[in-house]
Amino acid sequence: MSIISSPKDLRKLPVEELQNVCDSVRQYIINQVAEHPGHLGASLGVVELTVALHYVFNTPYDKLIWDVGHQAYAHKILTERSEAFKTHRTYGGISGFPVMAESEYDAFGGGHASISISAALGMAIASALRGETDRKHIAVIGDGSMTGGLAFEGLNNAGAANADLLVILNDNGISIDEGTGALNQYFTKISASSRYNYFKNRVWNITSGKTEKNTVFRDFLSKVSRTTKSFFFRKGELFETLNFRYFGPIDGHNVENLVDVLQSLSQIKGPKLLHIITTKGRGLPNAEANPVAYHAPGKFDRETGERLSDKGDTGTPRYQDVFGETIIELAEQNKNIVGITPAMPTGCSLNLMMKEFPERVFDVGIAESHAVTFSAGLAVEGMKPFCNIYSSFLQRSFDQIIHDVAIQKLPVVFCIDRAGLVGEDGATHHGTFDLAYMRMIPNMVVASPMNEQELRNLMYTASLYEDGPFAIRYPRGRGVMTDWKTPFEILPVGKGFKVYDGGKNTDTAVISIGHIGNMALQAAKGKHISLYNMPYLKPLDEVLLDKIFGEHKRIITIEDGTLKGGLFSAVSEFAALQKYKGDIIPLGIPDRFITHGAVSELYKECGLTTEKILTLL
Amino acid sequence: MSIISSPKDLRKLPVEELQNVCDSVRQYIINQVAEHPGHLGASLGVVELTVALHYVFNTPYDKLIWDVGHQAYAHKILTERSEAFKTHRTYGGISGFPVMAESEYDAFGGGHASISISAALGMAIASALRGETDRKHIAVIGDGSMTGGLAFEGLNNAGAANADLLVILNDNGISIDEGTGALNQYFTKISASSRYNYFKNRVWNITSGKTEKNTVFRDFLSKVSRTTKSFFFRKGELFETLNFRYFGPIDGHNVENLVDVLQSLSQIKGPKLLHIITTKGRGLPNAEANPVAYHAPGKFDRETGERLSDKGDTGTPRYQDVFGETIIELAEQNKNIVGITPAMPTGCSLNLMMKEFPERVFDVGIAESHAVTFSAGLAVEGMKPFCNIYSSFLQRSFDQIIHDVAIQKLPVVFCIDRAGLVGEDGATHHGTFDLAYMRMIPNMVVASPMNEQELRNLMYTASLYEDGPFAIRYPRGRGVMTDWKTPFEILPVGKGFKVYDGGKNTDTAVISIGHIGNMALQAAKGKHISLYNMPYLKPLDEVLLDKIFGEHKRIITIEDGTLKGGLFSAVSEFAALQKYKGDIIPLGIPDRFITHGAVSELYKECGLTTEKILTLL
Repeated sequence: MSIISSPKDLRKLPVEELQNVCDSVRQYIINQVAEHPGHLGASLGVVELTVALHYVFNTPYDKLIWDVGHQAYAHKILTERSEAFKTHRTYGGISGFPVMAESEYDAFGGGHASISISAALGMAIASALRGETDRKHIAVIGDGSMTGGLAFEGLNNAGAANADLLVILNDNGISIDEGTGALNQYFTKISASSRYNYFKNRVWNITSGKTEKNTVFRDFLSKVSRTTKSFFFRKGELFETLNFRYFGPIDGHNVENLVDVLQSLSQIKGPKLLHIITTKGRGLPNAEANPVAYHAPGKFDRETGERLSDKGDTGTPRYQDVFGETIIELAEQNKNIVGITPAMPTGCSLNLMMKEFPERVFDVGIAESHAVTFSAGLAVEGMKPFCNIYSSFLQRSFDQIIHDVAIQKLPVVFCIDRAGLVGEDGATHHGTFDLAYMRMIPNMVVASPMNEQELRNLMYTASLYEDGPFAIRYPRGRGVMTDWKTPFEILPVGKGFKVYDGGKNTDTAVISIGHIGNMALQAAKGKHISLYNMPYLKPLDEVLLDKIFGEHKRIITIEDGTLKGGLFSAVSEFAALQKYKGDIIPLGIPDRFITHGAVSELYKECGLTTEKILTLL
Repeated sequence: MSIISSPKDLRKLPVEELQNVCDSVRQYIINQVAEHPGHLGASLGVVELTVALHYVFNTPYDKLIWDVGHQAYAHKILTERSEAFKTHRTYGGISGFPVMAESEYDAFGGGHASISISAALGMAIASALRGETDRKHIAVIGDGSMTGGLAFEGLNNAGAANADLLVILNDNGISIDEGTGALNQYFTKISASSRYNYFKNRVWNITSGKTEKNTVFRDFLSKVSRTTKSFFFRKGELFETLNFRYFGPIDGHNVENLVDVLQSLSQIKGPKLLHIITTKGRGLPNAEANPVAYHAPGKFDRETGERLSDKGDTGTPRYQDVFGETIIELAEQNKNIVGITPAMPTGCSLNLMMKEFPERVFDVGIAESHAVTFSAGLAVEGMKPFCNIYSSFLQRSFDQIIHDVAIQKLPVVFCIDRAGLVGEDGATHHGTFDLAYMRMIPNMVVASPMNEQELRNLMYTASLYEDGPFAIRYPRGRGVMTDWKTPFEILPVGKGFKVYDGGKNTDTAVISIGHIGNMALQAAKGKHISLYNMPYLKPLDEVLLDKIFGEHKRIITIEDGTLKGGLFSAVSEFAALQKYKGDIIPLGIPDRFITHGAVSELYKECGLTTEKILTLL
């Protein structure tokens, strides 16, 4: 099976052959992702759209921006990366997300949600300023991403700027987990309405006429706008309110029709939105039936679609499940405990609590900023919110954490999943800044568990802590304990402790925070050193540090976060204040963005390995 | 003139007397703010609303949340703080913003925009979980704040949660500067439409009937909803799309009518939005005529309303004007330079460039996150964006800075105004985190000028820098130079220099960053010390630091930012890496939120004074 791998080749084909291209690209994605896991569902859903976009628009001159970017596999394959795609998400291979440095077809990079409209608007305005009026700018954004405030800010500004911009709303009703929020209900209403089918057929009938179809289509639209807009187009009222012309919804899996509609739209100036309906996981029955599980299914059988067992199963639990099961135990004891997640109930395992206490878990959609301020409101009224957000996404809430929680000393518990290096998702998803950006916030407790038991006990401690916010960050992946459901114990706030004692009069002390302490422990065993675990970065255990300073000439700090602002910084600052005259050697994430690959490969790149530690002992 | 200063007293009055209360409260605000400057316009605009809300609702049991909070003066006066209001914004006095610790009537604190719906929703859900179904939750939000993405996220979630929540959209067409964005155009259309007056009269006629007015009003609304909703209510389509019932727009200065409408709405369950039209600066002709200048006018004559001259005028320019005038000079030389501001053109002096190059300045409304991603889009296409955002508001863009700019190494220039302690606005507005949160971001240049000339030259250097983002942070207020328009010179990136040489073999070196270096310079004069100015926190001038380490036994670092992550941290980290064995003494903002008051008083509280420095020399 040969794959079309360049838009130039694609554009030579007659439109009737495009569905064949779609089929082969789709099969190629399935075959590759079956063996090299990645984001499957989203990419399968936009194969026809991708083919139609590159067929109609003059990429890379025209600018195509993929929101989130995890749906861009067909885009990568079609833009001269069909071979390279075999390496996607591997160390040294191509990224799973658009990256400007990777291809001129990747008009903008990124892996976070809701950015595409703002970025495309900036490009469109730049083109306008330079007089490049023929350049088109297209943002493709999912219904999930559309709930993010940034998308709304972009729409609002684009509508006022009257920029020449096409936003394609890819509506599959799923945003990793099931969609949520009023906007999602609204989209569902639109696509389910009786008007939808009528309108859809009408557009299709008209635009499938081959002669002068553009003119016909535009005549139709203009007629509709003039005479019956309030009837046909009311479903787009949200967007029309913001000065966007709204078109759709149409079937996102009919590639020939998509080509027709896009050709028509490419000749209409100003801000416009095309609403397409797609099926996540399209073409793989298991993925269509279970879009949440097949968002990123891991390895699966390319023939049957069945997911293969997780080879990472070491018998120890995933940290996210320790969180998910522990919060249920705590919620049983304390009726004020509630859970909040922005669109990640499955990813953070809050779905477990949803089953037990459906009325006490809130999936607020892709809306990290709101998730935090909403949690603040809950806390004001005496609830005990556990707000679970992935580390890199929590960056979206930095001001809300400071302004709505910390200044007001509200007892919100931040459970920060995917902290440290996350592996294959790469630079946009690594959670390497959280220790640093949380530490600078007054009133904040900043903690990180070394193992499952510590995570449980930190959650327990946080559930009883009323003096302000409490952050607990823990990594993606599995812990180190098989018997981890131990009885709850309070971990005194701001206290660290020795976890390995290499004997008296040791020169070197290793101080670690979080799961990576296990790597230090492995290295330390049998060595004449002391290993200290700091469950709390803040408040810093200054009594213990003073003791460590007094007893050791050399200190090695180990953390899986940036060296600019985390544990090393805290220890260095305290050393300066205490006039400590020994040496301090830092191990952590260097001051650069880290690529994608297996976590072990990335740690190695950062010098965070047992071997490296051993060379220092 | 005696002032009603408790909701309990207010509620004893007949409704006919409420306008008198409004008049006296309004006059009291004018009298006080004339002498003790603060946010005038917004508070004058909501006097009637405030009186009506406390009259109708059972505050503090019912929860009233003011978005931004700078419009809460009437609220403070009416809630047992009429005497205390004489101290507002002064050191030791009450805050200019709602503060939970200050009064039980301040249901939520804060000074940033767009937070109220999310916070109120959290409270409403908490009430529902506890079965307190009689408690009402009201969020008052301006049309400017409504453009912030967080407000949209809150609306979207509230609509889906079907919470019992009343949002009052206070529409005055002004968000510090003139409103901007499609949403604002939409509001203007609504209030200007012919339907508006018809609808307004109809609501007023019906609700002014004294007998069974609630029933009548509800009957009317239900009838309208059933039969002619699409006609009357289409103007609220944006909110109806998000499951909110929309009411209005009505006159926000008719207090009796407001009382009637609020009483009716208080009996309707579910999410609902009341759109009121108000005049910013209402009751003071100058303020009504010039809402931008009278947003926070400084001292003015309480009789004539005329603004009094700025006693802070030292003959030196404000940093914001150095920015405003310099960017024009740069833009004249480089046609790719564009300016971006989220709703602060006057505050940051980008309004100067707006006059010269209207097509190259973009006021994107209150939308800090979008401002940054939009700037990224501009930069991708070869523009040179100067994105100007106040330090504490830029916290809203933390993820966009990392994800949309720094990972992609885009040459966006961040001009960060209001850095350091800002004075009377207090904890929510101090810009004390920027050095720390920018320093941790890879690829970022972090700079801060000691004076006007350095700001000019940093802007010039940034305009030529193409390797990635470049942040320049500078304070509110005035510089130190009278002849500051000196020819442009490049300040080599990452280079510091000695600004005072106290002779050979000095024990002590002072290292400062930014404007506060002038305080150090004043202290240093005549002393046997060396003073180094670091225009760049990142990249750190390690060559110079090595030299300083080699020549001095004691180092004092001075910065007007948090000591957790800024200059002191950077110097301590480098000292650890270089095994520097001298002492390091930090001066900066301690790890707590700093209150409001004159900047000089706040510096004193933080130990940042010439006298304090002198004790160390």
